[in-house]
Amino acid sequence: MNNPKALNTLGLRQALLAIDNGECTAVDVINACFDRIEAREPQVGAWQYSLSREVYLDQYLSNEAFYQQSPLKGLPVGIKDIIDTADMPTEMGSPIHKGRMPVDDASCVALIRAAGGIVLGKTVTTEFAYFKPGKTRNPADLERTPGGSSSGSAAAVADAMVPLALGSQTAASVIRPAAYCGSVGYVGSRGEFSLRGGQPLAQSLDSLGLLSRSVEDIELMRAILLRQNDPLAQADAVKPRKVLICQGDKVGETDPAMVEAINQAAALLEGQGVELVQFEDEEFLPQMVQHHIQIMGYEVARNLVVESRQPELLSEPLQDLISSGLAMERGLYLESLNAAAVGGDNLWQRFGDVDAILAPAAPGVAPLGHEKTGAPHMSRPWQAMGLPVISLPGLVDEAGLPLGVQLVGRAHDDDSLLALARWFEGALASA
Amino acid sequence: MNNPKALNTLGLRQALLAIDNGECTAVDVINACFDRIEAREPQVGAWQYSLSREVYLDQYLSNEAFYQQSPLKGLPVGIKDIIDTADMPTEMGSPIHKGRMPVDDASCVALIRAAGGIVLGKTVTTEFAYFKPGKTRNPADLERTPGGSSSGSAAAVADAMVPLALGSQTAASVIRPAAYCGSVGYVGSRGEFSLRGGQPLAQSLDSLGLLSRSVEDIELMRAILLRQNDPLAQADAVKPRKVLICQGDKVGETDPAMVEAINQAAALLEGQGVELVQFEDEEFLPQMVQHHIQIMGYEVARNLVVESRQPELLSEPLQDLISSGLAMERGLYLESLNAAAVGGDNLWQRFGDVDAILAPAAPGVAPLGHEKTGAPHMSRPWQAMGLPVISLPGLVDEAGLPLGVQLVGRAHDDDSLLALARWFEGALASA
Repeated sequence: MNNPKALNTLGLRQALLAIDNGECTAVDVINACFDRIEAREPQVGAWQYSLSREVYLDQYLSNEAFYQQSPLKGLPVGIKDIIDTADMPTEMGSPIHKGRMPVDDASCVALIRAAGGIVLGKTVTTEFAYFKPGKTRNPADLERTPGGSSSGSAAAVADAMVPLALGSQTAASVIRPAAYCGSVGYVGSRGEFSLRGGQPLAQSLDSLGLLSRSVEDIELMRAILLRQNDPLAQADAVKPRKVLICQGDKVGETDPAMVEAINQAAALLEGQGVELVQFEDEEFLPQMVQHHIQIMGYEVARNLVVESRQPELLSEPLQDLISSGLAMERGLYLESLNAAAVGGDNLWQRFGDVDAILAPAAPGVAPLGHEKTGAPHMSRPWQAMGLPVISLPGLVDEAGLPLGVQLVGRAHDDDSLLALARWFEGALASA
Repeated sequence: MNNPKALNTLGLRQALLAIDNGECTAVDVINACFDRIEAREPQVGAWQYSLSREVYLDQYLSNEAFYQQSPLKGLPVGIKDIIDTADMPTEMGSPIHKGRMPVDDASCVALIRAAGGIVLGKTVTTEFAYFKPGKTRNPADLERTPGGSSSGSAAAVADAMVPLALGSQTAASVIRPAAYCGSVGYVGSRGEFSLRGGQPLAQSLDSLGLLSRSVEDIELMRAILLRQNDPLAQADAVKPRKVLICQGDKVGETDPAMVEAINQAAALLEGQGVELVQFEDEEFLPQMVQHHIQIMGYEVARNLVVESRQPELLSEPLQDLISSGLAMERGLYLESLNAAAVGGDNLWQRFGDVDAILAPAAPGVAPLGHEKTGAPHMSRPWQAMGLPVISLPGLVDEAGLPLGVQLVGRAHDDDSLLALARWFEGALASA
């Protein structure tokens, strides 16, 4: 290897290829990741729990033949600490579950292990994937929030500690930290993946998510999570014919830098010959934001029940959310549930010939400070409708801080969305 | 008490009232339940795990003041062994999970405990809530299957061992055993209740269910599971204005005794002045049956992942289901998923002025033998569409064996369905 120190910056697929080509070994990549973690974890704080290098390598070497012939070849993956792992604590960002050892692996974890991925550790989550931050800092600027709730997954991936990590999204918990940290974030259509062993927060909103540094790695891991026969097979990238542009003000408060980013992205698409159409509706998405808030409050109050026994160990925002959910009129909840259920179909019927929607992944760059994780409104509408989304990095503000834009697809047509996103990723990189 | 031995046959609400009126104590009811279990469990085999009388009474007496002022006053509830309990093993009917001790209570279990219910034990489930039977026999005829997968819950309730038990339904796992054993079975709209801590089988189909001996007890427990402020409040029973009659042959194979039962139930409605309309579509429900089968196969194969590590410990039918699910073309799955997602709305739009649908809860009475749990097709269409259903006992064949009929409602309008069901339960009882 000419530059072994850069191995931690390879994506999953890139690393697998390098190993196949004899340019490095899996152990080289693993060591490069641990080198990076040792150098950066004291500042970044992405990990709630992690294997030591020695334990990891023992696990790899004791079963090397299996790993060598497996799709993921023993490479490391991070798992958000809201997802159960049988060999590591799963604490959900809460003192209530300090040291909690799950009995079983979540299905997604078991699938990764079966494909030869090794769980390097559990990444920091906000308290029960809601608002109260953990210790993680934004690797792009340590004075800023990484976003939440998949804070550690986004930071670990953006900081090149691991090539890929699992997250989950109920409001903005994958897309926002991906946007703030500068990683790729993908949230599957609602119901797309098994959530067995992932701690539910709101059953009508929860989705599994992935964080990586490239769309192709999202596609690879998606294939593994769907138990596809040949997860390494890859479809062609697809240039969209027509894209619906959703400016941030069609959802809610937007920073000027993000207005600029969406305009840049739109200009880039147009320059590539993609037809653009502007989303002009001022009411639809703010309504979906409200529906999302209603559904989330009502359902969280009926999921975090065990924890209600120890309210003194819940943060104030979470106590407030539960109280408001318990006080909510059921009719209001049902109204929101019904509106959200048909929202996606209605939206896509209005724009039948559009291939994807381009929208801000967050209101702007990551805010300064670590007391809050930033505003979630840019994700709420799509999440309420259960649509697949992917956030792409590449654009930055004047100070060079990441500005994420997201593409939104049709429910359960995640494959088409990812094929477009891979094309757009290339266009952003060469812009 | 004039007849303390009958206390175990009281419903939850009846027992609470009797306690309030000073006719008996909670301990009397608890003892009556244990007397019944001691007498009948060797034949019925409803329990996978249960507290001893002593341990139960210790639990009650050590916190008597709490129980006395609680909604459920310390009365016993059974929990299907697919739902996690922190103080009892949860084995999912599989040797793979022998002795498995969950870390946390499921949300539904925590809600019952918070309302003053005591978990008497875990009721027998088929293997992972699929087809392979447990040890339970049908209390109405020990030579017959109790149905599955909530076998133990249906049998324990029908045999008056406990007034209420939790179940779950992915295909026909609540409605069929309720129909076969002669209990009331209720399956909530999809997404209605938190499934946190319930083991998922197929995320687009799984619903929580309840088994009891009266509709009013279903309503009471539903209110507790929804964390309603006053779970003991009760709405009026509602006589339907118009009911859609779905004969069994509109779904699939039907025994003559069930044809007769539906005709009897329809005649009863008509006699009470309820307008009837016949469901004449020959294709819609069989298509929904097929969609259900596709969705279930595809998703089960992606939920039972941990278990795939030990295929030799899976039953042959389950291995076959997983294999077929893994081999299934994704396009077929998505077609079924989409058809099922709009099926309920389409159906209810066609019959906008109908208050409920009356349909068989099973093809006939419980089949003889214990190798299988009976055919699930009568539930598959409604389950695919995510509609709330309730199975009512009261009708019997010539030999006196239970024949269940079910009422189907609109998604998330479970309250209206239960109000109608309580009226119909009264009509059936006085017929």
